[in-house]
Amino acid sequence: MSSGTATVNQKTTAERFAEALTLIPELADVEAIIRTSFQSDVRPMKEIPDYLLSLGGKRIRPALTLLCAKAVGMSPITSEVLNVAAGIELIHMATLMHDDIIDQSPIRRHKQSPYAKFGTPLTLLSGDFLLTRAFGLCARLDDTVIAHTEQACIELVEGEALETPLYLESHTLESSLTIAKRKTASLFRLAAFCAGHLSGAPAATLEALSVFGETLGIAFQIIDDVLDVTSNEATLGKQPGLDIIERKPSIVNVLWLSSGDAAARKLLQPPVAESEAAFAHKALEMLQTSQYVAEAKQLARSYGARATESLNQALTSTPQCSDGASQALYSVIDFALERLK
Amino acid sequence: MSSGTATVNQKTTAERFAEALTLIPELADVEAIIRTSFQSDVRPMKEIPDYLLSLGGKRIRPALTLLCAKAVGMSPITSEVLNVAAGIELIHMATLMHDDIIDQSPIRRHKQSPYAKFGTPLTLLSGDFLLTRAFGLCARLDDTVIAHTEQACIELVEGEALETPLYLESHTLESSLTIAKRKTASLFRLAAFCAGHLSGAPAATLEALSVFGETLGIAFQIIDDVLDVTSNEATLGKQPGLDIIERKPSIVNVLWLSSGDAAARKLLQPPVAESEAAFAHKALEMLQTSQYVAEAKQLARSYGARATESLNQALTSTPQCSDGASQALYSVIDFALERLK
Repeated sequence: MSSGTATVNQKTTAERFAEALTLIPELADVEAIIRTSFQSDVRPMKEIPDYLLSLGGKRIRPALTLLCAKAVGMSPITSEVLNVAAGIELIHMATLMHDDIIDQSPIRRHKQSPYAKFGTPLTLLSGDFLLTRAFGLCARLDDTVIAHTEQACIELVEGEALETPLYLESHTLESSLTIAKRKTASLFRLAAFCAGHLSGAPAATLEALSVFGETLGIAFQIIDDVLDVTSNEATLGKQPGLDIIERKPSIVNVLWLSSGDAAARKLLQPPVAESEAAFAHKALEMLQTSQYVAEAKQLARSYGARATESLNQALTSTPQCSDGASQALYSVIDFALERLK
Repeated sequence: MSSGTATVNQKTTAERFAEALTLIPELADVEAIIRTSFQSDVRPMKEIPDYLLSLGGKRIRPALTLLCAKAVGMSPITSEVLNVAAGIELIHMATLMHDDIIDQSPIRRHKQSPYAKFGTPLTLLSGDFLLTRAFGLCARLDDTVIAHTEQACIELVEGEALETPLYLESHTLESSLTIAKRKTASLFRLAAFCAGHLSGAPAATLEALSVFGETLGIAFQIIDDVLDVTSNEATLGKQPGLDIIERKPSIVNVLWLSSGDAAARKLLQPPVAESEAAFAHKALEMLQTSQYVAEAKQLARSYGARATESLNQALTSTPQCSDGASQALYSVIDFALERLK
């Protein structure tokens, strides 16, 4: 019964997110810029990004950029905003390629990952290619955009470096949240900030937009960590439990570890080939209905509430404000919290 | 006797290159910018670049940037030129890190490679970190520098993608030279061009500087390919013959392949664990005194001659010109051709 209710809620949230996307026909322009940036006479440099793009994705970062610009009154959307939105998605795509190499992930969105399909050398280079294109797009904008883009990318890379299993023993809820903030929230914050900045929004609005982007990004990442435990392969598009197998300092893992549960101590040891599948299976079964997942969801909701509050502030501190785009942004928060994949 | 003569010549060339470096005390400023860009509170993001820097290196790209600026009359060297020189070296460092992952190279400059010492995940991320810092430095300059930096990085990545063993069968001398041009000459050309551009050199000088940088870079890469065959581990700082073992479309390999020598056909097959060492050993022994190496050296000298000619043009087409820096640039060409490592 309660799962039925959740499904109804989810459907509504997903539908509202889909409706939000219809408010931004400019997403097609962003996609065109992204595709143009794949141009290369060296086949795999076009083929691999094309393949990754074909796997689909939520395009939540460009959507966020465009909706924030609209919400604070930009009309029509300028080419600068389209370029930043494309640049941010390209950075995200590059990190997906490099992440799959780091995690040796065979599957992404139900299909072979670029890493599995094209191998390490070409996938690594393809990520570098996209990073270069992204910087090319953002570097043509003003110094503020450049400085914030550099900062966001540095944080993103640092967040991923902090995530290496080497350091799992020393992780706490606080350090796990730092990782979520750096590796995921950095690009969300960049998207919201740049949209406001390029719209000429006042300082108070920019600050509120930054906090909105950052807290939304943290909530988004916490739910990612939850879904790794609660979802299934059919919905997730990849095997669940990877954070367990890869000994990642996910929010769920650190909450479990810090509980003192003896079973969690196994996370501090490298996977043992013979017993890992059984451990992951048992851990998933236990975690799905555990207090750790409940705590993580509660934490995500609290970040979602801060995102809502910051969005309120951003919208009340700007002279012009689009109701449609504003409502769409609230639905993005709901979607981040209630999505099933 | 002839090897004795070569040593004397080399010593002179190396000495003249060392003298050239004394003309550019600003290299210390570039190094300071590079070190500052390693700052991070995430230890490996500072530790890995520090380690790579500690392995030494010729710093030929920053030296080229500074000498070109001086040669066309810039005095004093501006912070823009220092930033570009640092940015180009950072891009080079990032590609070394990523290359070692791609080639699974255990050794760099007599020591463990960053990849061998720190593993794929952190080395990959560290390369991304440096790429981001490099773009941060270059993006703060004008649109011309940004466009040329983006173009050079794209070419560099494309050149490396073309080099994957997958494609060796279809390689020719022409395609091998295309790879040298893209993967190596792109940054040399960028260094020379940006130095001229930021010095306000006239269009004819800029064009000549670009050709100088590009032809010098191609000569440099051809000699790299030659040294992989003719040098030894003590001098090279890594095992010779890696281009053979890794089935790279090096200039020497494609000349050998295109000769129709039956033994070269083995380059078209993947390495076979049991017989690879014997094959590489025999191939090296034969190649060292072969016509292919002689042809490759001749080819390098012809690119060196074009570099000299373009440098002449650059220096005669610019109103101001520093004799000391100009002479130093000629010694860089000699060094690129006659170096032993």
